[in-house]
Amino acid sequence: MFYIIGLGLADEKDITVRGLEAVKGASRIYLEAYTSILMVQKERLEAFYEKPLILADRDMVETQSDEILHRADEVDVALLVVGDPFGATTHTDILLRARALRIPTRVIHNASIMNAVGAAGLQLYQFGQTVSLVFFTETWKPDSFYDRIKENSDLGLHTLVLLDIKVKEISDENLARGRKIYEPPRYMSIPLAVKQLLEIESIRKDDILEADTTLAVALSRVGGGEDQRIVAGTLADLAKQPEEAFGEPLHSLIIVGRRLHHLEVEYAEDFAVDRERWRTVARSVYGCALD
Amino acid sequence: MFYIIGLGLADEKDITVRGLEAVKGASRIYLEAYTSILMVQKERLEAFYEKPLILADRDMVETQSDEILHRADEVDVALLVVGDPFGATTHTDILLRARALRIPTRVIHNASIMNAVGAAGLQLYQFGQTVSLVFFTETWKPDSFYDRIKENSDLGLHTLVLLDIKVKEISDENLARGRKIYEPPRYMSIPLAVKQLLEIESIRKDDILEADTTLAVALSRVGGGEDQRIVAGTLADLAKQPEEAFGEPLHSLIIVGRRLHHLEVEYAEDFAVDRERWRTVARSVYGCALD
Repeated sequence: MFYIIGLGLADEKDITVRGLEAVKGASRIYLEAYTSILMVQKERLEAFYEKPLILADRDMVETQSDEILHRADEVDVALLVVGDPFGATTHTDILLRARALRIPTRVIHNASIMNAVGAAGLQLYQFGQTVSLVFFTETWKPDSFYDRIKENSDLGLHTLVLLDIKVKEISDENLARGRKIYEPPRYMSIPLAVKQLLEIESIRKDDILEADTTLAVALSRVGGGEDQRIVAGTLADLAKQPEEAFGEPLHSLIIVGRRLHHLEVEYAEDFAVDRERWRTVARSVYGCALD
Repeated sequence: MFYIIGLGLADEKDITVRGLEAVKGASRIYLEAYTSILMVQKERLEAFYEKPLILADRDMVETQSDEILHRADEVDVALLVVGDPFGATTHTDILLRARALRIPTRVIHNASIMNAVGAAGLQLYQFGQTVSLVFFTETWKPDSFYDRIKENSDLGLHTLVLLDIKVKEISDENLARGRKIYEPPRYMSIPLAVKQLLEIESIRKDDILEADTTLAVALSRVGGGEDQRIVAGTLADLAKQPEEAFGEPLHSLIIVGRRLHHLEVEYAEDFAVDRERWRTVARSVYGCALD
């Protein structure tokens, strides 16, 4: 049996009992590399499972899946992934490959940012499509996310924005010299994300991302653990906070839509940089019926 | 501390290790009533936890939250809910009440249908807003879901449709006689859901829900367990299946949007009632580039 097991969002204790049983019974256990970088150290997971883990980077999962699937029709093999196996990063390729090899598979679900985002108090059924925001460079500023946010915004829906991460990057200089030296991993911060959003707004000018009148909520480590952090405010509020205010990566950002309900405002207000401004914008710009 | 703990979607082993620890340490444990009806018996959960549970119906959670929260500032109290605490049914009311009473709270996330729906192989970021479909009566056929599906459909997005459940209903006759006798719980089946969708289409006529050319995927018990069931086909395909084909309740339905990618078609094809028709419609109606 080939298992793909979601680990949830915070630390080693977010695995389900079913998932832990599968780990305990597996002959080989792969850990998708993002996982160890983003949540807890590989060593900590190994101590918790009392079993060794094999690191598998994203590239290996995508292109060398036969190695991972080797003999999975005879012994149990597990691949551990952060969040849910069908969350922001899907694993349909390796499951399709297993199917072609006639290897039985089982997916063990867990929380992913796509549903844990509800922790901000905004209703999940009021979210439109999810978008990703990548690191801009001087010459490359892909802005298709803007069209998607506009589509949601036109319907009054919230948008979950997933922020870019860069792992295993090689600098131009090292690339030119043929040196396979990886740069340290980079995670997009909330202030940088807001800066990029406003930069595209200043070009496209559809008035959907305004510094002082668009509400947003930043989230990190939404797993119910100690290091969960939720910060709400106008885009300008968030841009002005120091990076530390948003906790550890990975970060996500919600752009609040106009169908905003007063109960959503009241719940998220607890996370606001400035409660008064949060309520004022919700009332006067979003038209929420607040006291 | 007041804990709200998501139980996931299938059975008692879908709770997280963190969640199980909180249950073990709690002085009182409430089980939201839907949970026991939909997943596993209360007794089975009690045996697994080795602790007694107090049943709390939805009404109690919403209107008598002070009873649940009693002394939660001194002892640990847990409320167990199916799926994720912020999934299809939110629990912001009781969390707001706890906040007002200055009781510390912690939410322990889990998979909900809002992300486990990815098990069908359709990409989560291609979903628009989620809608609910309620049981029609002779005189009451609320159709606002149709506008929402149309909004998603116009953007080419998939729609997750959550199907109604009726618990604690009292018949008109018993109501008239003042007898508090509850009818057995009812869960909307996939064939009935499709019938209702097509009924509203025949009135509204926006051509977004067509028996032979709209693709859909039905899901139940998406928890990685033995009783998970996923069935894909045209709306007509699904309407013709016997109810048993769709497994145990609770059921959900995905209406497939036009941005459908060929990899999504290939993954979900494994669940198709008729593979050839699934591919043909995907190719000729949805314009997917398939072999």
